[in-house]
Amino acid sequence: MINVKGTLAVLTGGGDCPGLNAVLNAVVKAALGHGYQIYGIENGFNGLIKNRMKLLTYDDVSGILPRGGTVLGTTNRDNPFKFAHVEPDGSVTYTDESETIVKNLSKRGIETLIVIGGDGSLAIGAQLSRDCGVKVIGVPKTIDNDLPCTERTFGFDTAMAVATEAVDRLHSTAESHHRIMILEVMGRYAGWIALHSGVAGGADVILIPEIPYHLDAVAKKILKRQQEGKMFSIVVVAEGAKPEGGEMTVARIVKDSFEPIRLGGVGNKLAQQLEELTGIEARCTVLGYLQRGGSPTAFDRVLCTRYGVAAIEACIAGNYDVMVSLHNDSIVTVPLQDAGRKPRSVTVDNEIVKAARDIGICFGDES
Amino acid sequence: MINVKGTLAVLTGGGDCPGLNAVLNAVVKAALGHGYQIYGIENGFNGLIKNRMKLLTYDDVSGILPRGGTVLGTTNRDNPFKFAHVEPDGSVTYTDESETIVKNLSKRGIETLIVIGGDGSLAIGAQLSRDCGVKVIGVPKTIDNDLPCTERTFGFDTAMAVATEAVDRLHSTAESHHRIMILEVMGRYAGWIALHSGVAGGADVILIPEIPYHLDAVAKKILKRQQEGKMFSIVVVAEGAKPEGGEMTVARIVKDSFEPIRLGGVGNKLAQQLEELTGIEARCTVLGYLQRGGSPTAFDRVLCTRYGVAAIEACIAGNYDVMVSLHNDSIVTVPLQDAGRKPRSVTVDNEIVKAARDIGICFGDES
Amino acid sequence: MINVKGTLAVLTGGGDCPGLNAVLNAVVKAALGHGYQIYGIENGFNGLIKNRMKLLTYDDVSGILPRGGTVLGTTNRDNPFKFAHVEPDGSVTYTDESETIVKNLSKRGIETLIVIGGDGSLAIGAQLSRDCGVKVIGVPKTIDNDLPCTERTFGFDTAMAVATEAVDRLHSTAESHHRIMILEVMGRYAGWIALHSGVAGGADVILIPEIPYHLDAVAKKILKRQQEGKMFSIVVVAEGAKPEGGEMTVARIVKDSFEPIRLGGVGNKLAQQLEELTGIEARCTVLGYLQRGGSPTAFDRVLCTRYGVAAIEACIAGNYDVMVSLHNDSIVTVPLQDAGRKPRSVTVDNEIVKAARDIGICFGDES
Amino acid sequence: MINVKGTLAVLTGGGDCPGLNAVLNAVVKAALGHGYQIYGIENGFNGLIKNRMKLLTYDDVSGILPRGGTVLGTTNRDNPFKFAHVEPDGSVTYTDESETIVKNLSKRGIETLIVIGGDGSLAIGAQLSRDCGVKVIGVPKTIDNDLPCTERTFGFDTAMAVATEAVDRLHSTAESHHRIMILEVMGRYAGWIALHSGVAGGADVILIPEIPYHLDAVAKKILKRQQEGKMFSIVVVAEGAKPEGGEMTVARIVKDSFEPIRLGGVGNKLAQQLEELTGIEARCTVLGYLQRGGSPTAFDRVLCTRYGVAAIEACIAGNYDVMVSLHNDSIVTVPLQDAGRKPRSVTVDNEIVKAARDIGICFGDES
Repeated sequence: MINVKGTLAVLTGGGDCPGLNAVLNAVVKAALGHGYQIYGIENGFNGLIKNRMKLLTYDDVSGILPRGGTVLGTTNRDNPFKFAHVEPDGSVTYTDESETIVKNLSKRGIETLIVIGGDGSLAIGAQLSRDCGVKVIGVPKTIDNDLPCTERTFGFDTAMAVATEAVDRLHSTAESHHRIMILEVMGRYAGWIALHSGVAGGADVILIPEIPYHLDAVAKKILKRQQEGKMFSIVVVAEGAKPEGGEMTVARIVKDSFEPIRLGGVGNKLAQQLEELTGIEARCTVLGYLQRGGSPTAFDRVLCTRYGVAAIEACIAGNYDVMVSLHNDSIVTVPLQDAGRKPRSVTVDNEIVKAARDIGICFGDES
Repeated sequence: MINVKGTLAVLTGGGDCPGLNAVLNAVVKAALGHGYQIYGIENGFNGLIKNRMKLLTYDDVSGILPRGGTVLGTTNRDNPFKFAHVEPDGSVTYTDESETIVKNLSKRGIETLIVIGGDGSLAIGAQLSRDCGVKVIGVPKTIDNDLPCTERTFGFDTAMAVATEAVDRLHSTAESHHRIMILEVMGRYAGWIALHSGVAGGADVILIPEIPYHLDAVAKKILKRQQEGKMFSIVVVAEGAKPEGGEMTVARIVKDSFEPIRLGGVGNKLAQQLEELTGIEARCTVLGYLQRGGSPTAFDRVLCTRYGVAAIEACIAGNYDVMVSLHNDSIVTVPLQDAGRKPRSVTVDNEIVKAARDIGICFGDES
Repeated sequence: MINVKGTLAVLTGGGDCPGLNAVLNAVVKAALGHGYQIYGIENGFNGLIKNRMKLLTYDDVSGILPRGGTVLGTTNRDNPFKFAHVEPDGSVTYTDESETIVKNLSKRGIETLIVIGGDGSLAIGAQLSRDCGVKVIGVPKTIDNDLPCTERTFGFDTAMAVATEAVDRLHSTAESHHRIMILEVMGRYAGWIALHSGVAGGADVILIPEIPYHLDAVAKKILKRQQEGKMFSIVVVAEGAKPEGGEMTVARIVKDSFEPIRLGGVGNKLAQQLEELTGIEARCTVLGYLQRGGSPTAFDRVLCTRYGVAAIEACIAGNYDVMVSLHNDSIVTVPLQDAGRKPRSVTVDNEIVKAARDIGICFGDES
Repeated sequence: MINVKGTLAVLTGGGDCPGLNAVLNAVVKAALGHGYQIYGIENGFNGLIKNRMKLLTYDDVSGILPRGGTVLGTTNRDNPFKFAHVEPDGSVTYTDESETIVKNLSKRGIETLIVIGGDGSLAIGAQLSRDCGVKVIGVPKTIDNDLPCTERTFGFDTAMAVATEAVDRLHSTAESHHRIMILEVMGRYAGWIALHSGVAGGADVILIPEIPYHLDAVAKKILKRQQEGKMFSIVVVAEGAKPEGGEMTVARIVKDSFEPIRLGGVGNKLAQQLEELTGIEARCTVLGYLQRGGSPTAFDRVLCTRYGVAAIEACIAGNYDVMVSLHNDSIVTVPLQDAGRKPRSVTVDNEIVKAARDIGICFGDES
């Protein structure tokens, strides 16, 4: 193809997230429609280092829009600036493979790299741009909704919908059995999923990392409900929630990965504690990977399509080293270097938190 | 109750819409939590005229958040300024019952009326405020998302999600049978549902009232797909879509109601026309009332809760004759008198329309 | 491949039905696992006549289990014993292509043909077996559940679940608006979908082809509910339902196809009639193709897997000219020649009909 | 009401299960329709001892059919023959309250008691009948499908559908991340949920209590897939699955309850073990209470309605001390005393197990 307008490449990085395929669908169709050719890189930055990529066609993205996962594959392990090699003796050494990446891109004449990823992948993208001169465009992915510089990441609406459906299911058991039912959802640093699904599911208590909780305040809320004849309570807790003055409950450490710490257990611990404090049976369900997989919601599919097309529009406009972002109901671009800043967390004066308090939802910080 | 801070009333008006109960849940809990008492009015403005209302308690809204419909009942027939009476001989006479309303409100000491409704109900609310001095606060409801002065009405996300699921279902039949499958969705004046569900479902053609279509352009798109080996096509059409220079397909006239004209048939007509023009079998499904009922999406439930709480906040602040509205990701208030202005329709330069075109979706106006 | 145990072929025929891919998944994996090679025939009997088929591999069925439609394609137009040819002047001539089929099969050494289809496709399969000596094994497919000789066809559970979800959605609108809401579901000769979804959705009236209805009895039921304070009613009607002494409402004739008559309109007609008789607003939704597409239910997926494996077991056992069938919770085989007998319809003393009557559901034949 | 034909009572016992309300809906409507009056007993056998019951009306069951849980409340703690009392010093004493029950029933003239419950509740019902002369009719409830004397319990189809949806969600993550994804489902003694959802979800490995597994066989299957280019695997494991010669993984002992032992942890342990053996990342999700709550499937709603009506038919026929049961697609009655026999487990020659093996699913007992 001699008359192509240019050559692009796209990768998906980090943990699984509903909508990756929907973004790919839009990126590839918009690129081809505008006369570009576009390479799909296998397994995130790993494929970029290992030189595993191929030109994508309409057929490659046919029918993928509604499907979970990513047809390109992904991994949340590989950092090209500190690429791990396991030696025969089991020890691990690290090399900087950023040069390899630059060579692999230039060999194929790839002018622009589209990185669909979360904070880890976008930070690598920003570094590739800053230190190696790669033209990068980022697309903000995470079910946690905690990336800075955008009002909404794709995947969040689906994760929140899955969590809400789970709260709905727990409600009937809680009510019939006069129990405390606890749902532990993802959210290590930010409580967006817990906040939204708790409000949407009609939870009585929502515990998030940003608002340290007092166990007593939670027990008091539940006992007050009991006195009013409500013999059950629903608690939605983010995995990163912690008691005032306490620590996050850490389940397991995973090294050298984009997921450095594996939390978990906060929900089960809470179940034990609340059962003791209130005398009411408590049970916990950990939603886990169900939040990350499956078909994206209609909302997410539209957002993904907008993001994917906007990434190609940025390429066409020569608007590099940016991340596409949702701002005031429009898609804009923001400097990619800003995308690695502090996670966007739930602030104390967040309107939804205030609305939740107004209808009687307890956040555990009440006196 | 001597120490109540004030007395409010709430009604739900117009057609069914997912999320009515979720707004009621928030309105009632926020009102009671802030020390107000609140009346629930039966069947929209009809109950206000007929003086059918009762004080609401926490029990009245317990468990209603996820449920479709409205526990207050609703009707889209009654305009208090032109209230219809059927005489024994079958003739209909009209009276102005606005005085009755004012009396019924003052009798119970109701200071503020919260109207949850679409353009018709909000226009009546605005008139009650303007002409009769009633303090009114509006909450913008419609699955069509076409109210002015707000970026999103509640109910739209659910309607769009139901339509997207329908497109998903039709996809497998279209592909297996090499057919044109057409889905007719609601949208008399505005194509938001068709636009969003078409993009989310991966439609090939989207036809909306705002962009008159050429039948030839649609057939051309479908035949071009066939030449490229895609033996099927998906068309999403809004009930109000019309050919360039043509008229809307009117199925039936309903008089003296908020739904003055019943459209329909555009999808079936299109199926016949496209089958003739392309030689490919075409089938139409009319989604109909499935868009209006059932449990709201998690997104809508959060939006409903925010709207409901904001309506009570407006009462507390003495901020009357406003509609609560979503603007730049925040809930604000806008003058209620503006809520009756021209419907918010899809503009030609709408970003989602442009994104859709960029990935090859046809709107029927291509030359 | 010299050591293959034998050579099989599989086709999917007739209208779309959830679970076709799930059967294919099982057929192909069981065939390959047992050492057979298996051809997939494109577009039902059309591909068998046109000699369009290819050897299937594990990759061809990877990931298809949960998906709607059929990866082989299908058509409900082609009868090899009376194969239609459209002449240049528009006239249609017919030829017997059964010889062509026999040649196409023997050319590739195909010993057994697996036909996944409804009454039309299975009747052709039976004729191929009887008249042409082709070894045929049938798998009973139809959303209508009306094939003789099996307690359950695959696809029915999904169709019934989709219809039930629709009834759930209509319920909230019916209740909030005090309306009669009518859902028209498929079922030309048998009312299984209407019966099951009506019971599952809590309908007040169920009208099926097997029980001719009196309009008066239906109206009476609805008015009785109104007197008891139930201001709404839900009616589920099969497309083939007809009044006592009346005819089915025929919407359109489609010639030379397995779908000889297109019904429809019974629901809308009923809405008009009931509105006049009762004075209560009535609205109809026609579920249409939404019943035929999309991912099969878990129940159907298990049934499809059992059927697909049983078809291969029959090949291995040399048990030809049979249809696999569900009988007393086990998969058995029945003579294929019996599969074309009279459709299995709902009998008057059907236990579910009697249970439905016992909880007050009206079938329109009450005096 | 002088002319009532008789007086019945109904209770729901044991753990939560989708469809309890659907059975109640049918029981109450059929009872009232046949001229009986019927008491609803609160919280299972607890309410029968504490004399907490009230006459049920049509209004009490209006709209409950599609809802999860039970409007009567339930508990899985109370055995009237060994009723626990917690003394002030924390010690527990037990009394036989069967006399109290008989008195409470006869005081109100209740002739027949309908017990909707699992093995624990039905065993109590059988003992009440045998030892105390109470006329009892049982309805077989359990998501585990492991009650003897019936082909299907209500709740199972829903639990299996929820588990299948979870497998679908995990599939996309497994495939994109090249991981082993494990889903732990309920099933202490019987693997029905794991078997059906594993087949329906397209699992590669299914581990159930009835077939002790060899860890090596499981690892071998996963590595074989990897060699064939399938870089991911899906494992569905019942909580009661155990290695050959090993023990069930016991998470916690709960005393004096119908749930005597709380299992759990088998999935997480397996993830660790398989990760070590295969070198492939493995992650586990425990489905937990999501299987027990929420709206029943259409299939379960029909089955519940049939069961509920059949229970009343048995009352009318004077057919006491029986359990209603599904047998050969019909509802029959079986002696209640038989319902407490050995759980119905998956047999080695189960047809679905054999079908699963035929399409390559591993049960861990392969050599």
